Amino acid sequence: MTKKIIEKLLAEKKYAQIKDILSALNEVDLAALLEELDEKDMVKIFRLINKQEAALTFSYMNSKMQETLIKAFTEKELKEIIDDMFLDDAVDFLEEMPANVVEHILSITDKETRSQINTLLAYPKDSAGSIMTVEYVDFKKEMTVGEAIHKIKSIGVEKETVYTCYVIEQKKLIGIVSAKDLLTSSDDSLIESIMETNIIYANTFDDQEDVAKLFQKYGFMAIPVVDTEHCMVGIITYDDAINVLQDEVDEDISIMSGMTPNEDSYFGTSVFDHAKHRILWLLVLMLSATITGTIITRYEDAFSAIPILVSFIPMLMDTGGNCGSQSSTLIIRGLAVDEIKLNQVFKVMFKELRVALVVSIVLSIVNGLRILIMYKNPMLALLISLSLVCTVIMAKLVGCLLPMLATKCKMDPAIMSTPLITTLVDTGSILIYFQIATHLFHLS
Amino acid sequence: MTKKIIEKLLAEKKYAQIKDILSALNEVDLAALLEELDEKDMVKIFRLINKQEAALTFSYMNSKMQETLIKAFTEKELKEIIDDMFLDDAVDFLEEMPANVVEHILSITDKETRSQINTLLAYPKDSAGSIMTVEYVDFKKEMTVGEAIHKIKSIGVEKETVYTCYVIEQKKLIGIVSAKDLLTSSDDSLIESIMETNIIYANTFDDQEDVAKLFQKYGFMAIPVVDTEHCMVGIITYDDAINVLQDEVDEDISIMSGMTPNEDSYFGTSVFDHAKHRILWLLVLMLSATITGTIITRYEDAFSAIPILVSFIPMLMDTGGNCGSQSSTLIIRGLAVDEIKLNQVFKVMFKELRVALVVSIVLSIVNGLRILIMYKNPMLALLISLSLVCTVIMAKLVGCLLPMLATKCKMDPAIMSTPLITTLVDTGSILIYFQIATHLFHLS
Repeated sequence: MTKKIIEKLLAEKKYAQIKDILSALNEVDLAALLEELDEKDMVKIFRLINKQEAALTFSYMNSKMQETLIKAFTEKELKEIIDDMFLDDAVDFLEEMPANVVEHILSITDKETRSQINTLLAYPKDSAGSIMTVEYVDFKKEMTVGEAIHKIKSIGVEKETVYTCYVIEQKKLIGIVSAKDLLTSSDDSLIESIMETNIIYANTFDDQEDVAKLFQKYGFMAIPVVDTEHCMVGIITYDDAINVLQDEVDEDISIMSGMTPNEDSYFGTSVFDHAKHRILWLLVLMLSATITGTIITRYEDAFSAIPILVSFIPMLMDTGGNCGSQSSTLIIRGLAVDEIKLNQVFKVMFKELRVALVVSIVLSIVNGLRILIMYKNPMLALLISLSLVCTVIMAKLVGCLLPMLATKCKMDPAIMSTPLITTLVDTGSILIYFQIATHLFHLS
Repeated sequence: MTKKIIEKLLAEKKYAQIKDILSALNEVDLAALLEELDEKDMVKIFRLINKQEAALTFSYMNSKMQETLIKAFTEKELKEIIDDMFLDDAVDFLEEMPANVVEHILSITDKETRSQINTLLAYPKDSAGSIMTVEYVDFKKEMTVGEAIHKIKSIGVEKETVYTCYVIEQKKLIGIVSAKDLLTSSDDSLIESIMETNIIYANTFDDQEDVAKLFQKYGFMAIPVVDTEHCMVGIITYDDAINVLQDEVDEDISIMSGMTPNEDSYFGTSVFDHAKHRILWLLVLMLSATITGTIITRYEDAFSAIPILVSFIPMLMDTGGNCGSQSSTLIIRGLAVDEIKLNQVFKVMFKELRVALVVSIVLSIVNGLRILIMYKNPMLALLISLSLVCTVIMAKLVGCLLPMLATKCKMDPAIMSTPLITTLVDTGSILIYFQIATHLFHLS
């Protein structure tokens, strides 16, 4: 909609009207609009955006568009954008750019910004350091509330958040003051008297996911980051934490469905990349499923003698797979949100065992009755019911143990989910089924 | 750790020391500590918590503990806690209490609070209204920044957030002023001159998940809620939005693994409840998997003639299931984050079709070669390769179509995931496999 209007106005060179429309849009929506336009129009429209909104809009755009814009920018325009961007956004953006572009950009920024950017770029991917910003407001404990508010007024507009301010003494973090405390205290109170000293903080090398979980647990707006000497080096804000949480969920869900995680969008990923992300697990699982097939061939005599045996294979395999995947999903989520701990492995096993008993007895009764009615064959009903009970118990135990084992081996437990569990449980169900069949029907 | 120390100090009646420890803990951690203690100790310790922290700690506790505490409280204590709680926390808490407890609590709160709580309790579950609070700071556009700050100072301490304030004219929302704007503007500027007028807001009856997505998209700290007449009625804060996002993800993941969603924790759910949440889908899927079995019996002659045919059933079924679940997961996530729209169904199908071709050709070549080498049987290799190509294409198309169809029918697309897709795709793979086998090997 807006896209068509903008293109029409652009063709008619009605720039003032375009500016009016643009100024009514939030930066996130501006970025989305620009991404819809073709390159030439996009550059033209970007130059019509209010100066205050340009940098933020730029940081919301995707890397491809950012690169296009940079190529079109004059050196002056580029410097302005980088200077106006929040430091953590600038770092996120630079991380996606080719080396020569990064070099060019760093060469035109001033010395202080350059050194700050370089420090942030050096933190390992996925560490707290890599998502923090060094732009925060710091106070001394001897300041009064009035002085503190004055400090915010003079410098705060450049800082990413002014809502949580930090009290620093000899580079160490000694207290936290919220803007709410400042606004609701009298001007002559001392910072020392209103600051919170029980501080929850992160270390620069903490995993970003662990830091994001702190936001979720405590509902903070910002968390301070300290280095190994406990000196304050930056803050992480809640908007970055929400993104980390969402990315981690997407990553887990991908792995749980047997795909390599992919940060790009569905339509933004090419057919070959989609295939690449999916083929590895499919190959592994396809080849391991042939093991189940090989086991079946060992029981050729059994199903030659009683051909109906074959027809229960899909039902047993599917039920086993579904039971296993229910358990593994619960355990993977429980581990992810820290509700289940590794030392509770026996508690989990005991719980799953009891659940498996209840579930498998219900399934066995329903299926046993169905077979009795349909085939009037009590031995067959007994075989399927017994196999179901054993399969469900085996599936639930495998489903809860493997994710915990993966965590113990410092692997992502999400790997041990539906596809892998299904394949493993399949082999187990077939073995159980034909073993019981061989005994019940005295085959070979 | 802390629990043991607290219990020891409590036995020794060293209350002053306990108070010191408690005051060093964040309210979230205090609530977690209380939940570990036995009931009697818990009530005693709760009474030792600082008055300012008691209400917030209470709102972080689980409903069972809250109910225990309420029973132990005097009327005066109860009234204090409710008055000190944020209104949205109080509503969350009351929603979990039995009707007689709710009545008792409402009877001792003052008239205004009671009427506000009743209004909030009346909104439908999962609506924006049900998670909003009516405690926000409002300004008039004629006020100066100095007057606005003075207003926050006098009333802000009771409001859930003072960081985003709302400019109201005749009950209508006309602008937003952030605390940052207030702190960084001169005292005599008019609110009208600094307020933001492009407002992103929610309606009381919007789905809470849609509102939570606004937070994720724009990174806001609070979003105003208006009623059908566009009058401002409340705000939703980002901490509630994070919880909604997380709950929705957990719900989706549960459904995607064939379980009824459950808000309680893994260990907090009884064995029978666990079984209840898992049995429904297992039954449905077990019975539908018997269809696949019935189809197999129709091809009894085929696998009696060539018994090795049976051994490829697990591999084909698993590969089909995995391919289908990869596609359905991608589409379910894409729909959940609004990246894929319903009208893009043909675009999605075309993409999945091409991915399926690439993937299936690779799988066919690998498996075909394996069979050629192991069985030296070119017809068998051809049969499996052809079946794989058809199965993968069918699985990917079913996997992408069903979630979109569910959405079209106003159902949760997450239902159309791994377990259901697997069962459907199984039937398809078996049909494809035996059809091709019958033709290739001229089996009647």
